[in-house]
Amino acid sequence: MKQSELPTLARELRDFIIQIISQKEGHLGASLGVIELTIALHYVFDTPNDLLVWDVGHQAYGHKILTGRRDVFHTNRDLNGISGFPKRSESVYDTFGVGHSSTSISAALGMALASNIKNEKEKQHIAVIGDASIASGMAFEALNHAGVTDANLLIILNDNAIGIDPSVGALKEYLASFKEGEVHEENNIFRALNFNYSGPIDGHNLESLISELSRLKSVKGPKFLHVITTKGKGLQLAEENQVKYHAPGKFDPETGKIYPKEEENLPQKFQDIFGHTLVELAEQNDKIIGVTPAMPSGSSMKYMMEKFPQRAFDVGIAEQHAVTFSAGMATQGMTVFCNVYSTFLQRAYDQVIHDVALQNLPVIFCLDRAGFVGEDGATHHGVFDLAYLSCIPNMILYAPLNEIELRNIMYTAQLGLNHPIAIRYPRGRGFIKDEWKLPFEKVGIGKGYCLKEGSEVAIISTGTIGNNVAEAIKRVSDSSKPAHYHFPFVKPLDVALLNNIGSKFKKIITVEEGGVNGGFGSLVSSFFMENKYDINIKKLGVPDEFIEQGTVNELHKYSGLDVLSLITVLQNMI
Amino acid sequence: MKQSELPTLARELRDFIIQIISQKEGHLGASLGVIELTIALHYVFDTPNDLLVWDVGHQAYGHKILTGRRDVFHTNRDLNGISGFPKRSESVYDTFGVGHSSTSISAALGMALASNIKNEKEKQHIAVIGDASIASGMAFEALNHAGVTDANLLIILNDNAIGIDPSVGALKEYLASFKEGEVHEENNIFRALNFNYSGPIDGHNLESLISELSRLKSVKGPKFLHVITTKGKGLQLAEENQVKYHAPGKFDPETGKIYPKEEENLPQKFQDIFGHTLVELAEQNDKIIGVTPAMPSGSSMKYMMEKFPQRAFDVGIAEQHAVTFSAGMATQGMTVFCNVYSTFLQRAYDQVIHDVALQNLPVIFCLDRAGFVGEDGATHHGVFDLAYLSCIPNMILYAPLNEIELRNIMYTAQLGLNHPIAIRYPRGRGFIKDEWKLPFEKVGIGKGYCLKEGSEVAIISTGTIGNNVAEAIKRVSDSSKPAHYHFPFVKPLDVALLNNIGSKFKKIITVEEGGVNGGFGSLVSSFFMENKYDINIKKLGVPDEFIEQGTVNELHKYSGLDVLSLITVLQNMI
Repeated sequence: MKQSELPTLARELRDFIIQIISQKEGHLGASLGVIELTIALHYVFDTPNDLLVWDVGHQAYGHKILTGRRDVFHTNRDLNGISGFPKRSESVYDTFGVGHSSTSISAALGMALASNIKNEKEKQHIAVIGDASIASGMAFEALNHAGVTDANLLIILNDNAIGIDPSVGALKEYLASFKEGEVHEENNIFRALNFNYSGPIDGHNLESLISELSRLKSVKGPKFLHVITTKGKGLQLAEENQVKYHAPGKFDPETGKIYPKEEENLPQKFQDIFGHTLVELAEQNDKIIGVTPAMPSGSSMKYMMEKFPQRAFDVGIAEQHAVTFSAGMATQGMTVFCNVYSTFLQRAYDQVIHDVALQNLPVIFCLDRAGFVGEDGATHHGVFDLAYLSCIPNMILYAPLNEIELRNIMYTAQLGLNHPIAIRYPRGRGFIKDEWKLPFEKVGIGKGYCLKEGSEVAIISTGTIGNNVAEAIKRVSDSSKPAHYHFPFVKPLDVALLNNIGSKFKKIITVEEGGVNGGFGSLVSSFFMENKYDINIKKLGVPDEFIEQGTVNELHKYSGLDVLSLITVLQNMI
Repeated sequence: MKQSELPTLARELRDFIIQIISQKEGHLGASLGVIELTIALHYVFDTPNDLLVWDVGHQAYGHKILTGRRDVFHTNRDLNGISGFPKRSESVYDTFGVGHSSTSISAALGMALASNIKNEKEKQHIAVIGDASIASGMAFEALNHAGVTDANLLIILNDNAIGIDPSVGALKEYLASFKEGEVHEENNIFRALNFNYSGPIDGHNLESLISELSRLKSVKGPKFLHVITTKGKGLQLAEENQVKYHAPGKFDPETGKIYPKEEENLPQKFQDIFGHTLVELAEQNDKIIGVTPAMPSGSSMKYMMEKFPQRAFDVGIAEQHAVTFSAGMATQGMTVFCNVYSTFLQRAYDQVIHDVALQNLPVIFCLDRAGFVGEDGATHHGVFDLAYLSCIPNMILYAPLNEIELRNIMYTAQLGLNHPIAIRYPRGRGFIKDEWKLPFEKVGIGKGYCLKEGSEVAIISTGTIGNNVAEAIKRVSDSSKPAHYHFPFVKPLDVALLNNIGSKFKKIITVEEGGVNGGFGSLVSSFFMENKYDINIKKLGVPDEFIEQGTVNELHKYSGLDVLSLITVLQNMI
């Protein structure tokens, strides 16, 4: 293809993404913002021989379409379709699987130094990373290492001043000063870290992109190209409403207007129950603080940020800092609600153990997106938290059945527990169509309860998956036989109730929306075994494998946690 | 105390530390390096009302002695003695418990913003952090946040160009250029991040320290003071051999000369088995790479770094980067041994899941210091790894019984497993006094074996704690009754052997040097329960609490894992 044809390609690529995503849903703004960069990279570099790593991957739709996946792009994020993120098993052009942010520099540096060792001196290694992602700690660690190597590594900073929500922090302000024309020729941060810095250049100008990338191809050692782009470029409404058009849902491909959703009389989203309840509690308790690592919209921490800007903090993509910052606040008597998606709390695991639990600081972790997240797939499911948190001393671990329980545990936690607590709840909508804003009730710590009496088999579930269990019980042939117990506390376990159940039932099923190894079912079955109950126990949960994308219902079905599968299990046991 | 008396105090404090540590052992160099800084901080600031956070805490001996712990300092790192690190429960002057690096800025920022909210505008908040620690990702996250706040926060960079081993990376080189007198008045990194930067100043000059700290007291907002110190200051040999004198063991307090240890005919340390075996394998397999996050000495990766400098990487205190960098290398066909202390792998938990296991990249993790580490205490015990790793799909998890097994699994892993593996082994010396460097033998993946036949009770152990079990069996009244099975593979479990054991024995004990929740015993008991074995099972391991410091033997005893406790358990079961 001639360089003169590339602007036409850019137009077509942009239109194609808009056409498909307007119907299919998915991540829009990020990919629109890097159309020219994507084309320029594939024009200048010899992929897949040259190795290109996209950070996070929301922006990689153009890359996917240009590398042989145009025909299947309409299956994006579907069960058995292509992934919404670059994925090694999907294409040789996807050199590194991504999803969580800020991994690209480390991965590309590893590739580049491997090439040095293999004496593949001409191979190019490129990481494309956004300004929100480069502010996260592990990206800095990689920059710090890369700067003292002779890696043939090009880091492209895709600077659009926004991640999912607008970027925050000192680095973002520093980067903004470049655009305002302040001189940073000498001693800029990236030069200080020993990178050959160039830019900033206009990321929507194909000519200057191609010219600069071509020049950098022959520059040896670690290089840093600063590119300015506009998220949502080419669709006016998306440029103007960048947060909303990150993943806008269905919209009119011509005008960009988002189609109204049919939302009448649907239950609230859990994130909004969290967000509104936090404000409600903060109005009464002036010690309450909210902390989010870069998810004010996704976690609905934005309500707290709007109402109490002095007491709510978006710290950027910085889960580690978010947790220890919360711990520091807790030492001064603050009641901190630190909201982190379940999958992202993995980033701050040591801080939860070492800075919070070891000191027994009563930080209140709210883990949104626990369980299956659906279309984002394997990188984002929150299915390990029950295992990785229940092994931590001092932690309380709570999984509400519904919105009311989420509200009440938040209320109870801010009254003071003298322990850290993690409250995990799922993505999406709740279960209560009527009034959810009932008067608060204090939750008894460590208490489970019986949802339905029975005679033959006891199902012990934790969390919202209990609603599937309840529905399944209603639909088995003899509904009187199964008993159903809800254990919102995975830790501490309600030992009294377990003894009670163990003495009544010979057949027990545990159900959780989390990995079967080391989670709730493991704790329960260990308890019964050690206490010498002669019980036939069956553990249901997420199998010990990485589960790909699909709707939450499809993934429930895959894991045997949907209503029909549960009915089958029950029928076989009663 | 008058300022003129402070130099005398400094001399006395230095002498006192040298006297005690020369006999007691402990961390020496770091505290000697900040004697003047410690005195100046306590002179200028109103602790504990002003809040002082020491990063890591190796350097806090002077602080402890000056804040009421002189009389108990000789119990440093003992069971029931004072901790080797700042600890909230020990003193109000210890505002934040530390041990792992790079937490201080986050914690102090949390405190400072809490003070703002409480309208305590005069309160000072100080974080003292070394140049190795500030290069770690979470410190950058905290700087990035702090720079856009009005926190009354002073960050003191204790720049001595060394952590435990010499600092590495681009930031270190940048900091070195300050000392060489290059001008960084404008646009230095810390100013770019919006800090009021001053320095560098001589950290051993009490007058200039006091003058500058006094000036900074009245400067509002985030401040950054760059202080140059010498690790080991005041003891010539310690200044000259900073790595060795980080924690030199017993030495002559007058000359500084380290007393020779009586080491004749002792088994090798596990870390050296790792280090030497890696070199041995790397000589045969040119795909082998070594990666350590700042622990070349402690992990003995230094041997690989000496022998194959192009194939061994010290990436600094950057566990997250270390893991994803290893993953990047693995995509290019490299066989990467990534050595991280068990407790520090917590820092890279998400990277292990998301970048390695999810992509099923065959990175070989070697987890040193698994189980109890002894005197470093609760912050450093490696007791969660079995739980937090066994819930990850695709992972192989191996705990050798002894040096030979460590060597053989390393050999086997580099032949290619098509999965990531984590090999966990303890701090300290092994068990084999004779030749450990036997010809390599390939390990059967997922295979356990019987160490001793028996009739009455089966003990199933994993890892080196099996040596305690074997010794206990020898010493019970009827040694013929207990059987002993060693399961080096925590994952995948040897299901065939478990079925075999389950069909032979009614009484089973599992033993592991790791948390009882979610670890090896949980997996084994879940297996027996789900497969309907009618078995009386007892799980031995580390109780579900944070275990303080002590010798490893003392901590084994505390947890019921020492030989005598095991004998008692066995006697009661046979």
